[in-house]
Amino acid sequence: MADSASPPSVVKPRAISGFPEWLPAERLVEQRFLDIIRETFERFGFAPIETPAVERREVLTAKGIVDKEIYALSRLAAADDEDPSTDLALHFDLTVPTARYVAQHFNRLVFPFRRYQIQKVWRGERPQAGRFREFTQCDIDIIGNGALDLLADAEIPAVIDAVFSRFAADLGTGGFVIRLNNRKLLQGLLEAAGAATPAALAAALRAIDALEKVGRDAVAAELVRDAGLTAAAADGLLDRLAAVTDPAGLDGLAETALFEEGRAEVAQVFDGLAALGVPAGRVRLDLTIARGLDYYTGTVYETVLDALPGIGSVCSGGRYENLASTYTRQTLPGVGISIGLSRLVARAFEAGLIAPGPATPATVLVTVMDRTLLADSLDIARRLRAAGVATEVYTEPRKLAAQLKYADAKGFRYAVILGEDEKAAGTVQMKDLKEGAQTTVPLAEVAVHLG
Amino acid sequence: MADSASPPSVVKPRAISGFPEWLPAERLVEQRFLDIIRETFERFGFAPIETPAVERREVLTAKGIVDKEIYALSRLAAADDEDPSTDLALHFDLTVPTARYVAQHFNRLVFPFRRYQIQKVWRGERPQAGRFREFTQCDIDIIGNGALDLLADAEIPAVIDAVFSRFAADLGTGGFVIRLNNRKLLQGLLEAAGAATPAALAAALRAIDALEKVGRDAVAAELVRDAGLTAAAADGLLDRLAAVTDPAGLDGLAETALFEEGRAEVAQVFDGLAALGVPAGRVRLDLTIARGLDYYTGTVYETVLDALPGIGSVCSGGRYENLASTYTRQTLPGVGISIGLSRLVARAFEAGLIAPGPATPATVLVTVMDRTLLADSLDIARRLRAAGVATEVYTEPRKLAAQLKYADAKGFRYAVILGEDEKAAGTVQMKDLKEGAQTTVPLAEVAVHLG
Repeated sequence: MADSASPPSVVKPRAISGFPEWLPAERLVEQRFLDIIRETFERFGFAPIETPAVERREVLTAKGIVDKEIYALSRLAAADDEDPSTDLALHFDLTVPTARYVAQHFNRLVFPFRRYQIQKVWRGERPQAGRFREFTQCDIDIIGNGALDLLADAEIPAVIDAVFSRFAADLGTGGFVIRLNNRKLLQGLLEAAGAATPAALAAALRAIDALEKVGRDAVAAELVRDAGLTAAAADGLLDRLAAVTDPAGLDGLAETALFEEGRAEVAQVFDGLAALGVPAGRVRLDLTIARGLDYYTGTVYETVLDALPGIGSVCSGGRYENLASTYTRQTLPGVGISIGLSRLVARAFEAGLIAPGPATPATVLVTVMDRTLLADSLDIARRLRAAGVATEVYTEPRKLAAQLKYADAKGFRYAVILGEDEKAAGTVQMKDLKEGAQTTVPLAEVAVHLG
Repeated sequence: MADSASPPSVVKPRAISGFPEWLPAERLVEQRFLDIIRETFERFGFAPIETPAVERREVLTAKGIVDKEIYALSRLAAADDEDPSTDLALHFDLTVPTARYVAQHFNRLVFPFRRYQIQKVWRGERPQAGRFREFTQCDIDIIGNGALDLLADAEIPAVIDAVFSRFAADLGTGGFVIRLNNRKLLQGLLEAAGAATPAALAAALRAIDALEKVGRDAVAAELVRDAGLTAAAADGLLDRLAAVTDPAGLDGLAETALFEEGRAEVAQVFDGLAALGVPAGRVRLDLTIARGLDYYTGTVYETVLDALPGIGSVCSGGRYENLASTYTRQTLPGVGISIGLSRLVARAFEAGLIAPGPATPATVLVTVMDRTLLADSLDIARRLRAAGVATEVYTEPRKLAAQLKYADAKGFRYAVILGEDEKAAGTVQMKDLKEGAQTTVPLAEVAVHLG
């Protein structure tokens, strides 16, 4: 007989394109990336800030045309006679919120202000394969009040070197190179090659910015067509850009004042890198890096993983003249960098460079073989936790075999088993789920063995 | 003479009501709360998950009328011929996203599923003094597949005890009490007192839920008016509710089957708490706790700080029959709790229960007294960082006095000073900025002294 009551309706959940979501085993790996980033940022003296997910629209759009898609907020439950719209929108990066934060709290901050910020950002893109609409950025900046010494430009890649070296050692992401350029070098070379007007210079920078994407021939053609270079000058320029990989290679390359300024800056930054212990060769001078057109004014950085060259730079930034001119009349020069963590983690999983591990942060599962010994099992868990060992107790009344299957499925390293015999002897059975070995351990020593 | 060029316009930044934002010294304190929460959750074997900030509107409103204000998203930069609205909205709690997550990933999760989730949530409230529109929740839940043993109801307050004990020890938040009730006890007592119909029962629960807010007399009147109790029955009931603070006090209080069921459950939970090492008296039976009307079905919890009774419960939750009936036909009973961290931290700052500390996570500032010794100073910083000591180098070319003033302003514990004499002797000056003492330390031992 059919049941006369109709089943309650169910809203079947499905993934939202562009909003990545991990299972616990994957999230635990992502957390290790985040922990390394935070620990390293703090070790270099960067202080944490967190800004709201939203800014006022006027703040987000203060610079004029915004090329980022922005999500605006409206109140879903506004009354009929209320305007549901708000003046709030989700931030699309962490640079604008930091600029607003520094301007707003200027009098309560100590400069140079060294801050890190690890937060989600949102882009209101149309759904597209592989394009994230929510992702985590991990930013550091050193911001001066009126001036900022060039030494800061060396510290930034030293931090990035420390972060990615720990990624490699602890998470297996492998080798990487930090590419460094100085916009003054590039502009000086372009001027020397014949890009005489600001418009020609901008066109040339735009062309070179696309070098990796479109290839040398297309860039050469663009330099001739849009920046007014002769074919020979364009060709010579591209040769020179490709040939240089360290400051020594800059000798005699151009003679403009701007180029010389850039050369002196780059030399100082490389000296700082050596003094900070960054291995030689880790930071490579790369004259083809332009990083956009109007924000950066000196040093610029990109970071590429040897194992994932196809995904491009996973950590980019540079030196800017003035962080917050749209929000304050204070002059705030700075230098910073941003790790695009969500894309890095997602692509590293896809490529098999990293893999999910256990689905639990705990090392030990305390099983409950005999429900009459429940209190003893709970006490073992208490001892282990007090000793700092992350421990779960199996709480359901099921057979030991089912409990051990659960331990395997979640990836615990050890299972603790307690029966009447062990209780009488003041011991427990300790099963190593990786090696398969099972040993008897005195109760008082269990934390030492499992720690 | 006036400058003829008009100054660029500035968008003056100001705080957005309901969206709290901390200075670095405060954020560092908030991070210690977050670290304790996460570390404790993991020590009890809860695995992290993170869900997107958004859900589909149909997911957020699947249960029917939503009493929470919700922020919907629209695309600010949509083209003229595009609909800027989306089907996405910001989540208003972490329970709905978890229910959706468990339903969506059901086949890839291992049950009992123990997850924690620490994220921002948003409420589209009209701006109001003291009301947050963005805040951080820290949730744990144990979710069973079909069934979940009552032992889980004892584990939840054991975790909360561990979290708040560490808050007290490390952050000075002081004593606290976890209040525990079981809805079956309360309902059994109400039935025995004469609340005979479901409507009367609901009215009585609603009345008692407001006890702390409106006082005993108002509740008694409401029990008579809306739940059909006699004045004597209402009075007797309120006496009984107030008198009981432990399971022994339940003897002979009522004789309905539901009450007896609740009594057996509470006894089992208290046995579990003792076995888990939760100090006697830390968890208090409180029959007046109802925690809303329709979600929880058994054990319910509230947590109150001795020093901040006025802010009410800072950590609440309970047992539910079915987490995700709106998203799946699986029956998923569970028990969980949520720490409202933003309010706790904000109120604890306001009340002076906690105070901001240093504005930097670093222990040491390496000064640069003599720019010719810059490389040596950077090398000292490198040594300290390699030894795990968070270290900043003062990067601006300023006098030593200004550098030490900076160190004081940011709250560093130590300053390292290096001059020609020290360099020649292979030593550094180590200044304790708290004690004022200055000592000479061999370069090779500096990390040991400052660690």
